[in-house]
Amino acid sequence: MADEKLMSRLSLNQITIDQWSLKEAVDGCLRNEVPWISVWRHKIEEIGLKQSKKLIRDSGLRVSSICRGGMFPASTAKERTDRIDDNKHAIEEAAELGTDTLVLVCGPSADRDIDTAREQVAEGIDKLVPFAKDYGVKLAIEPLHPMFAADRSVINTMDQATTIAEKYEPEEVGVIVDVYHVWWDPNLSHEIERAKGRILGFHVSDWKVPMPDMFAGRAMMGEGVIEINRMRKAVEEAGYHGPIEVEIINKLLWDRNGDEVLAEVKQSFVKHV
Amino acid sequence: MADEKLMSRLSLNQITIDQWSLKEAVDGCLRNEVPWISVWRHKIEEIGLKQSKKLIRDSGLRVSSICRGGMFPASTAKERTDRIDDNKHAIEEAAELGTDTLVLVCGPSADRDIDTAREQVAEGIDKLVPFAKDYGVKLAIEPLHPMFAADRSVINTMDQATTIAEKYEPEEVGVIVDVYHVWWDPNLSHEIERAKGRILGFHVSDWKVPMPDMFAGRAMMGEGVIEINRMRKAVEEAGYHGPIEVEIINKLLWDRNGDEVLAEVKQSFVKHV
Repeated sequence: MADEKLMSRLSLNQITIDQWSLKEAVDGCLRNEVPWISVWRHKIEEIGLKQSKKLIRDSGLRVSSICRGGMFPASTAKERTDRIDDNKHAIEEAAELGTDTLVLVCGPSADRDIDTAREQVAEGIDKLVPFAKDYGVKLAIEPLHPMFAADRSVINTMDQATTIAEKYEPEEVGVIVDVYHVWWDPNLSHEIERAKGRILGFHVSDWKVPMPDMFAGRAMMGEGVIEINRMRKAVEEAGYHGPIEVEIINKLLWDRNGDEVLAEVKQSFVKHV
Repeated sequence: MADEKLMSRLSLNQITIDQWSLKEAVDGCLRNEVPWISVWRHKIEEIGLKQSKKLIRDSGLRVSSICRGGMFPASTAKERTDRIDDNKHAIEEAAELGTDTLVLVCGPSADRDIDTAREQVAEGIDKLVPFAKDYGVKLAIEPLHPMFAADRSVINTMDQATTIAEKYEPEEVGVIVDVYHVWWDPNLSHEIERAKGRILGFHVSDWKVPMPDMFAGRAMMGEGVIEINRMRKAVEEAGYHGPIEVEIINKLLWDRNGDEVLAEVKQSFVKHV
């Protein structure tokens, strides 16, 4: 019974089985009784937004989030404006696909000046908020592990993410808690508590030693060192009871049969999340 | 003139040219006019402490630190006591080689319980302080990048290191600022200021994108994204004017001629540190 309740929160983050098109992923979720899906934008692009929307609507699947907006810092004002425009498209896509959550991977610095890049992230979000609100879409800042500070995001801690989010209403801007990115944080318990009412997603995978690849070497839940269950309880105490995305970015999974991977995900999910 | 002053602070951290024995490293430093050396314990072991001491003394080189003590967490009380004993040896070695600084790489958790591991680090340091003080050796806690939280150290931020250090006198426990480990920290400026009077070492290398290897993929200063010069000024404002260790852990450097590497280190040092 408790398992059923947990399984009703399982969401397949599409990157976990990146070998599947959106149609294949939707079919795979239905076949394997996974009730939620997190859709990546490069998969929407492959078939267009209209077709993607139809696929999702006909399936009855619920969309936990769209991955991803963000990538705010850039060298010139023109480039930064282009990024904002791209984020607006992402917001439209989220609304069309029926989710209220756009995940923000905020982007790296264009040069060595990380402080300025962090300011550009805050400015970018500030520009997006009214637009997102009009569409009923929340901006979900996902802090990325500090090892991605140089190439993916200059937002690397819950503290940073929540500090930006707090400037807005909880229905405007919140945070994503991804165990892989934040498990090491000495202030984690405090930061999860602090984000109460603003947690817009909970992502699971695991950190295995040795790490086979910084970007695409995440492990199946239970294979690594992260206290996933403890973190789930912490985000629940902070008021989050929504979908739980399995986001295992791992090259080895991409070479396998998607149904096999999804079966393994379900087993690992019920046992370790 | 300014260059000369800076070069008088250059210290070769031995791991940068790990292909050299201690004798070769000492000779290399003399040949290349590098005034300081940071000695690794596996190099001392190769020839014994007595011989190491003679080598250093005869050379006139100054020893900036011994790498490394630490590795405190372990499953059993017996193992943890063994680790303390090993640290005591390291303290003796530091004193014999004429340095007052023992670098602590605090160690990973023995299991998934990172909070307990962090407590064990604090307990281990507490047990060592009186012993170290007797030998005139300071314990220098080096926060390691969060990507090493699972396999090398559960002390991952300046905040954690300084919080432990502050329980003791500045001549007992302090911190190492290694640019590679802390450059991403959103609170870095504040934390360097906070560590004022307790900074016991400044280590340089660089973070290059893409990172060729998490452990042994550090770059030569200037090849990556770190604002090294800005950080040097910050630690100087916080009162640190001691030796600056070049610690570039990179497999590619180990396959090259040591003198060539050291010449490159000097060029990069004067230009980017």
